[in-house]
Amino acid sequence: MITDKIRVGIIGATGYAGVELVRLLLSHPNVSLTAISSTSFEGQAITDIYPNLFGSCSLKLCSADEVPPLCDVVFAALPHGLSEPLAEKCAAVNALLVDLGADFRLTDEKEYTEWYGKTYEYPELHKGAVYALPEIYRDAIKQAAVIGNPGCYPTTVALGLMPALRGGFIETDGIIIDSKSGVTGAGRSLTQNTHYPDANEAFAAYKAGAHRHTPEIEQTLSDLAGKPVKVTFVPHLLPVNRGIESSIYARLKLGADFDTIYAAYENAYRDEYFVRVQPKGEYANIKNVRMSNFCDISLHIDKRTSTLIVCSCIDNMVKGAAGQAIQNMNLRLGLDERTGLTALPSAF
Amino acid sequence: MITDKIRVGIIGATGYAGVELVRLLLSHPNVSLTAISSTSFEGQAITDIYPNLFGSCSLKLCSADEVPPLCDVVFAALPHGLSEPLAEKCAAVNALLVDLGADFRLTDEKEYTEWYGKTYEYPELHKGAVYALPEIYRDAIKQAAVIGNPGCYPTTVALGLMPALRGGFIETDGIIIDSKSGVTGAGRSLTQNTHYPDANEAFAAYKAGAHRHTPEIEQTLSDLAGKPVKVTFVPHLLPVNRGIESSIYARLKLGADFDTIYAAYENAYRDEYFVRVQPKGEYANIKNVRMSNFCDISLHIDKRTSTLIVCSCIDNMVKGAAGQAIQNMNLRLGLDERTGLTALPSAF
Amino acid sequence: MITDKIRVGIIGATGYAGVELVRLLLSHPNVSLTAISSTSFEGQAITDIYPNLFGSCSLKLCSADEVPPLCDVVFAALPHGLSEPLAEKCAAVNALLVDLGADFRLTDEKEYTEWYGKTYEYPELHKGAVYALPEIYRDAIKQAAVIGNPGCYPTTVALGLMPALRGGFIETDGIIIDSKSGVTGAGRSLTQNTHYPDANEAFAAYKAGAHRHTPEIEQTLSDLAGKPVKVTFVPHLLPVNRGIESSIYARLKLGADFDTIYAAYENAYRDEYFVRVQPKGEYANIKNVRMSNFCDISLHIDKRTSTLIVCSCIDNMVKGAAGQAIQNMNLRLGLDERTGLTALPSAF
Amino acid sequence: MITDKIRVGIIGATGYAGVELVRLLLSHPNVSLTAISSTSFEGQAITDIYPNLFGSCSLKLCSADEVPPLCDVVFAALPHGLSEPLAEKCAAVNALLVDLGADFRLTDEKEYTEWYGKTYEYPELHKGAVYALPEIYRDAIKQAAVIGNPGCYPTTVALGLMPALRGGFIETDGIIIDSKSGVTGAGRSLTQNTHYPDANEAFAAYKAGAHRHTPEIEQTLSDLAGKPVKVTFVPHLLPVNRGIESSIYARLKLGADFDTIYAAYENAYRDEYFVRVQPKGEYANIKNVRMSNFCDISLHIDKRTSTLIVCSCIDNMVKGAAGQAIQNMNLRLGLDERTGLTALPSAF
Repeated sequence: MITDKIRVGIIGATGYAGVELVRLLLSHPNVSLTAISSTSFEGQAITDIYPNLFGSCSLKLCSADEVPPLCDVVFAALPHGLSEPLAEKCAAVNALLVDLGADFRLTDEKEYTEWYGKTYEYPELHKGAVYALPEIYRDAIKQAAVIGNPGCYPTTVALGLMPALRGGFIETDGIIIDSKSGVTGAGRSLTQNTHYPDANEAFAAYKAGAHRHTPEIEQTLSDLAGKPVKVTFVPHLLPVNRGIESSIYARLKLGADFDTIYAAYENAYRDEYFVRVQPKGEYANIKNVRMSNFCDISLHIDKRTSTLIVCSCIDNMVKGAAGQAIQNMNLRLGLDERTGLTALPSAF
Repeated sequence: MITDKIRVGIIGATGYAGVELVRLLLSHPNVSLTAISSTSFEGQAITDIYPNLFGSCSLKLCSADEVPPLCDVVFAALPHGLSEPLAEKCAAVNALLVDLGADFRLTDEKEYTEWYGKTYEYPELHKGAVYALPEIYRDAIKQAAVIGNPGCYPTTVALGLMPALRGGFIETDGIIIDSKSGVTGAGRSLTQNTHYPDANEAFAAYKAGAHRHTPEIEQTLSDLAGKPVKVTFVPHLLPVNRGIESSIYARLKLGADFDTIYAAYENAYRDEYFVRVQPKGEYANIKNVRMSNFCDISLHIDKRTSTLIVCSCIDNMVKGAAGQAIQNMNLRLGLDERTGLTALPSAF
Repeated sequence: MITDKIRVGIIGATGYAGVELVRLLLSHPNVSLTAISSTSFEGQAITDIYPNLFGSCSLKLCSADEVPPLCDVVFAALPHGLSEPLAEKCAAVNALLVDLGADFRLTDEKEYTEWYGKTYEYPELHKGAVYALPEIYRDAIKQAAVIGNPGCYPTTVALGLMPALRGGFIETDGIIIDSKSGVTGAGRSLTQNTHYPDANEAFAAYKAGAHRHTPEIEQTLSDLAGKPVKVTFVPHLLPVNRGIESSIYARLKLGADFDTIYAAYENAYRDEYFVRVQPKGEYANIKNVRMSNFCDISLHIDKRTSTLIVCSCIDNMVKGAAGQAIQNMNLRLGLDERTGLTALPSAF
Repeated sequence: MITDKIRVGIIGATGYAGVELVRLLLSHPNVSLTAISSTSFEGQAITDIYPNLFGSCSLKLCSADEVPPLCDVVFAALPHGLSEPLAEKCAAVNALLVDLGADFRLTDEKEYTEWYGKTYEYPELHKGAVYALPEIYRDAIKQAAVIGNPGCYPTTVALGLMPALRGGFIETDGIIIDSKSGVTGAGRSLTQNTHYPDANEAFAAYKAGAHRHTPEIEQTLSDLAGKPVKVTFVPHLLPVNRGIESSIYARLKLGADFDTIYAAYENAYRDEYFVRVQPKGEYANIKNVRMSNFCDISLHIDKRTSTLIVCSCIDNMVKGAAGQAIQNMNLRLGLDERTGLTALPSAF
């Protein structure tokens, strides 16, 4: 078969990030979904596991090894440690790897070892890898050999603090990040705390100060600040399907005023289609970004305590995973980065 | 400005059906959204009321009268009684009216009077009006002078029973329809029973045997059966945002067997993109059609009581309102009826 | 330790019915919770599994065999087939068995075999067993050797139709029961369709015409009607934690009028504390019975089709399981049947 | 009628705090609910508005003025500014006022004026008023002339930080409080952001740094610290009916270690029935306190940033309003403070 479309494949297509990639890529005008793999469901039709796709996708799930040779771009949504060898295989067949896992996010191997308990097996590969948050690292992404797609929580934080750090408006110590994620963030695997009667009408923190997204957050904030930044990061499980809200607290530097900061955010994101700085007085809400690749940011100041409060919201499955991965692919391939990502969030 | 795009407008754009039309039409490749009106919010930007559209729509809300002259197609989502005079105005400027209200659904004025307490003020207009359920009345829709877009519940029932009635597999008396609708079906207006603490973790029937969709359901079933059909219809309020499930019960005629009926459904809907007959043994679920124009139908038989059970699911805001309206516009204008309606339902 | 309190134990205390028994029995003024068992968590404190009880219960989970000798009353919440041998052991130590499983519900062994695939191993035990729906079989319960606590769905149906059948107001064929249950009805075990992202914002039927509560429903309705009754029963999974609503449809006999039927219901339940016939025009709603042992019933008539519609609501974990079991124990032991069951449902 | 029971009344009985008081007081063994008032529904039966109470309460709603003369204790759940004149009336008839509003919480009139825009009309009354958080001010409550029942958010914060402040483990500046409240916290009045489709699957902050509970929080923390404390307080609306979780962040003083702090919390709350310090490693969750008067507290430390993280959970309608009010009445009247508050939280 001859086609002008870009041949894309997904490894780990039955996980939540994977099937969201399937859904979005099936509507992407420039790609053809060529191969999808799953360890758990190899040999089955994807529609057997996900009947929402019934009639829209006739692919069967193959093994991971079958994917790279059939593709120009391979998306991988795998547990950490599995993407490095995969990157080798992709390189061998000249396929671009967009990795949604953690293997290519941290530039400092020591951090990776500390938080993930592993070392880099293929150090060479990491030299061409880029931490792919488009609104911050767009130019590097366009040249990347391997795309390390950011984590969901870190996306809210990096976009939420970028103008404040670049503008030098806040102290870089003592930053508090209180994040809340919808249950899809915990994935498709069955666990007690994601059992409906356990998660519904419930709310609690988890992994306070110990979540693996911490070093990734600190890496980007340190880069933006030009010096090491450590943060306190506490995620919570929110009884909704989709959405992350991060409320970020930072001490204002002396003399920093709200209007100047607000103008800096507007300026930083004026040309960014996917980042929407909310009008003054409004609050970013996860419902306004559902099913979309938008990141909504609202700014607030507590004058009594000289604290900047940033509320940053994304759909964890789109801007926090599959959507941002497609945005990165678009960038890397020279397409308009919005391609395939123009469906608007619904009001309800 | 010169444009080849079809100019479309929405009257009642801040109601739930209206804003869903805004969302979907903004992504429709062949149309340009020209004018949107609202009685409550005239003069304001739509994004003031619906921040999900922030950055995607710069239109201000005008008055209803301003819309028709600016449009080739006018969608109206209004309380009953208001669409008849509007149809006159649309006709005067040669704009096609797609009416999402009840004024152009019932062919028998007596039924309209009995259930809505009004008479037809412009009887001539009704001659060119078509009850626009595409999978049943496609040919007529292509010629319609006015499009009467079906109600949400009736869509599930008509599609759920069409092959059974045409095939003569079921008795036409004693049909029971037990429907459940998400809360958006009750609209944007604030009411006690749609207040979050009242609706959440709650479930109850309402308007048992007395809902205004009853005559519309019976009109289509009677037409399909070739004789008068009366039904028992009981809707319930379901604690979800979107989705209708109708469980429909009908006594099987002697000799009707499951495989024959199933084959008749498959046959009837083989070429219908938006109707998906589920594999045997599966159950139609509202979650598989969310945000899409699909109607999922599953078939079941209780042999012990010779009863056919049809489960029919739609997204009440899409196939039950805005999506079907766009499908009808597409049909009437000679476009592929799927245009602008290809976003796939998500798995979660 | 000497105590005048009734010593009660629970076998299967970490399942949902079991832990609901723990919660309610800890507040019961006449009992002392003596022993609780669990196969999965033997040796652990119950508060390790259920932190809601933290500080309120210091019991450790033991093995099932340890329970009967320590108790005057044993509640068992076990998979079918396990309660028969347990009844033997309880009889041996003179402990009353209140069985929340299915083993002692069906009087006709053939029905048990057909729906559960097993035979009765201890036929003698069934002679003294009573199907323990207090509002229908109160006198027999007071003498029962073994208490067979009804299923959740059957409780809504039997109470919902009792006055109509006893009064001869409805035809006994063609009864349709469309039931919806909160997710706790599916129990504590992890399954894909009770995974939060699968169950939330979802709704579907399951086991249409094939649910094991069908013979139990038919047994009681047949007894009430004085002749064999077969029903069409279709349950649905409802995205709430607790609650069952059954909408029941029956054809009216000629001449049956609403006021007479309503009076019959009022009369039948006037002295029943736990059954609340709703005012005319109101609809029974699961939210009004949450956390209580009430069954709310509302009555409606579709005159156009001569159909009686009964909406019957309970909390599936209380009146549908643990609460009714305690009501039965109270009755059997000569206590006021409301003892320990007086907490009122909350408004939200 | 002669009765030994305490005669209690509720002013504002149809608001959410009011009807929760009705529910709990109806089950309180030492009181008799004598009079309930409502401005909106005067003359109607409470069960017309709250059918959950159907059959359990035959009271009609009267006017506010009728209540005090009929009562030994008056609970008032009113908008601010209305409780001062009421306190006068209660004093005149020797009835104890338990005020759930804001009028008697702040000892510094300047704070009241700054945040509520009013002055104290009856300064004398405030001298005998006590800010009634039992676990902190128990002795004073026993002597109070007027009981100022704490706000919901402040209860979580005061209990969450009391041992840390008394023990001097944390810096008193820079405290961040990120709170999340269920929708009942917004009350019964209909608003757009508590409309089900707006609140469901949504999450956002509101009134960042500007919520009226701020001065109340600071008043108690300052008292505990022995010096002025200012905090950053940001509430969020959580899509559940009931529950508040506050995640509180404070910088550790040099040398403060987790085990010492944990022991201080255990020690502080060892004899407090309603405060449950969670085992190390566990997280306080709103689901474990639902429908109860418990406050669950979990402690966590981020060593990397020397930050103490306290998660504090209550049911906003019980410990955050009606339950704590009853606890205070019990204390003031010399009853066991747990009376009427022993219903255990359910697991789901």
